[in-house]
Amino acid sequence: MLNIRIEKATTLKEKPDPNQLGFGNIFTDHMFIMDYEEGKGWIDPRIVPYQDVVLAPSAMVFHYGQEMFEGLKAYRTKSDEILLFRPEMNIKRTNTTNQRICIPQVNEADVLQAIKAIVEVDKDWVPSLPGTSLYIRPFIIATDPFLGVRPANMYKLMIILSPVGAYYKEGMNPVKIWVETEYVRAVKGGVGFAKTGANYAASLKAQMKAKEKGYTQVLWLDGVERKYIEEVGTMNVFFKIDGEIITPSLEGSILPGVTRDSVIQLLKDWNMKVSERKLSIDDLYLAHEEGRLEEVFGTGTAAVISPVGLLDWDGRQLTVNNGEIGPVARKLYDTITGVQCGTIEDTYNWTVKVNQ
Amino acid sequence: MLNIRIEKATTLKEKPDPNQLGFGNIFTDHMFIMDYEEGKGWIDPRIVPYQDVVLAPSAMVFHYGQEMFEGLKAYRTKSDEILLFRPEMNIKRTNTTNQRICIPQVNEADVLQAIKAIVEVDKDWVPSLPGTSLYIRPFIIATDPFLGVRPANMYKLMIILSPVGAYYKEGMNPVKIWVETEYVRAVKGGVGFAKTGANYAASLKAQMKAKEKGYTQVLWLDGVERKYIEEVGTMNVFFKIDGEIITPSLEGSILPGVTRDSVIQLLKDWNMKVSERKLSIDDLYLAHEEGRLEEVFGTGTAAVISPVGLLDWDGRQLTVNNGEIGPVARKLYDTITGVQCGTIEDTYNWTVKVNQ
Repeated sequence: MLNIRIEKATTLKEKPDPNQLGFGNIFTDHMFIMDYEEGKGWIDPRIVPYQDVVLAPSAMVFHYGQEMFEGLKAYRTKSDEILLFRPEMNIKRTNTTNQRICIPQVNEADVLQAIKAIVEVDKDWVPSLPGTSLYIRPFIIATDPFLGVRPANMYKLMIILSPVGAYYKEGMNPVKIWVETEYVRAVKGGVGFAKTGANYAASLKAQMKAKEKGYTQVLWLDGVERKYIEEVGTMNVFFKIDGEIITPSLEGSILPGVTRDSVIQLLKDWNMKVSERKLSIDDLYLAHEEGRLEEVFGTGTAAVISPVGLLDWDGRQLTVNNGEIGPVARKLYDTITGVQCGTIEDTYNWTVKVNQ
Repeated sequence: MLNIRIEKATTLKEKPDPNQLGFGNIFTDHMFIMDYEEGKGWIDPRIVPYQDVVLAPSAMVFHYGQEMFEGLKAYRTKSDEILLFRPEMNIKRTNTTNQRICIPQVNEADVLQAIKAIVEVDKDWVPSLPGTSLYIRPFIIATDPFLGVRPANMYKLMIILSPVGAYYKEGMNPVKIWVETEYVRAVKGGVGFAKTGANYAASLKAQMKAKEKGYTQVLWLDGVERKYIEEVGTMNVFFKIDGEIITPSLEGSILPGVTRDSVIQLLKDWNMKVSERKLSIDDLYLAHEEGRLEEVFGTGTAAVISPVGLLDWDGRQLTVNNGEIGPVARKLYDTITGVQCGTIEDTYNWTVKVNQ
């Protein structure tokens, strides 16, 4: 149990127009900070006014990428409760990431307490318009002022909050995806399963290429054989072929998404056939040629479900479900967002109330 | 040509004992900073007192690893000149790295001017004891206060300086190396050839494992077939087999080292057979079994040449040259350090005087 010191801001910022919210550009009045020092562990948990981070230019995070983050959301229900969606999964993944990139483990109960505490302090920032939410960004950075290459001895764990708008302002529209064959996001033995800056820095170039060609996101293939499907943009990906719903199995290079896990659980409970296994891009195109490909969609915290309408693989264009949203994607989206906002009964105990 | 504003420190720090210098933990009185803003380019080049970096907690570098660095050294000659070693190669590599991780290009002449200017201002910090030098660390970080995943629109390029001690204080001793078969540093299509935090964050876990087992560094194998030798620790690596000196060819996952390039040039000029090509760990062990393996050494800015005395590949230990330094490693070390310090004639025009 953390003993969190709270220093309230003396002046509060004006809240943004809930109809104009974007993503990740507006931050609330406060933030949570906790330091780590070798030999002392995680110390001085505190909620302070949202403020700049002051670091030596030699701070290791600027040089060797020893950094991790998580992303989850708080939702306001019609009865004005504030709900988190499966936060314990994000916190567990924090330790999986930390283990891989040599950041010290966190106490999972403490981090949940910290998330609840900072959201409680800034609860007036949780918007109520349909589709809006408060994005929660816990992150850890290595702060030693030292240029040697080794795991740091000092870290900061921070949690910042950003009110975000509806992902689908103009309705859910299937996106066009570029199948990337030159650049690789991650490889088995690397850090692909960890939520760390490395994977995002490595992904930018392909993302830019796709955008220049008129596509929304990239479909990543594996780094070894360059044929097995891994992720779509920064989301996990699902395919419905011949009634079977397939998502790539987690083998070290794919992020174990919270939405991915929720989708698998729901599909099983709906008695649909769902498989975590390898799927090659060739087999996907073959399934389409033979009329067996029914749906494609991405899953992630930002969009929840993102239907894919078109794929382009070296000029071979494949249109999915006539470019329309499929019934599985639609049902998953409605169910998960319903649970998140408290309009559908949470039979899985996925939601956690902030003020309890 | 940059118009560099100079703000001198009002009080100067005490210089450290040159006999006690380590690596990367002491910094000089000043630093160089230059900002980048989309639409304006690189602006406001300045030399200011060494100071903390102040960033929003949402600054992109903390989340998505969009950061790069370089490392080179300034040496003081017997006649009190200050020499840089092939700085234009580091600056060129800066742009190669930037291109891969979507950081805007720098003007190479401007960065050379900036390096010369900051070293000139802090020239009293360049130590003169044999083996000591002033380590120069240019680096660039993404500073936009924004949580969306895309290339940043704002960056800071900084140059900090650190006086460093002799790498071989107690004489050059061959090191023991762990051949890593589980973790992967980089893969073709990824960012292995770029000098960016991602590669270092990904390497920490294996480095810790090697140290725990009593080894100094890791020998990295390729991420696809897991058999071809790539790098040793944070250095390039060379093998002398049957009179041929082999270093892994640059195919996207290996850093193109400045010392690596210098070694290749010297060996060619000495009429030795030098090859850039793939070498598998099996072939290396076979060469050793057949008595054909003569030398193994790493190359990098910190150590210049680091002889390898022993390899351990899944328990199969291989002793190189009876654990002693080989004649090629010795000659390369003496030649390159001699050129760097001005005691051997620089027939290659590798050195650049700071005050010219």
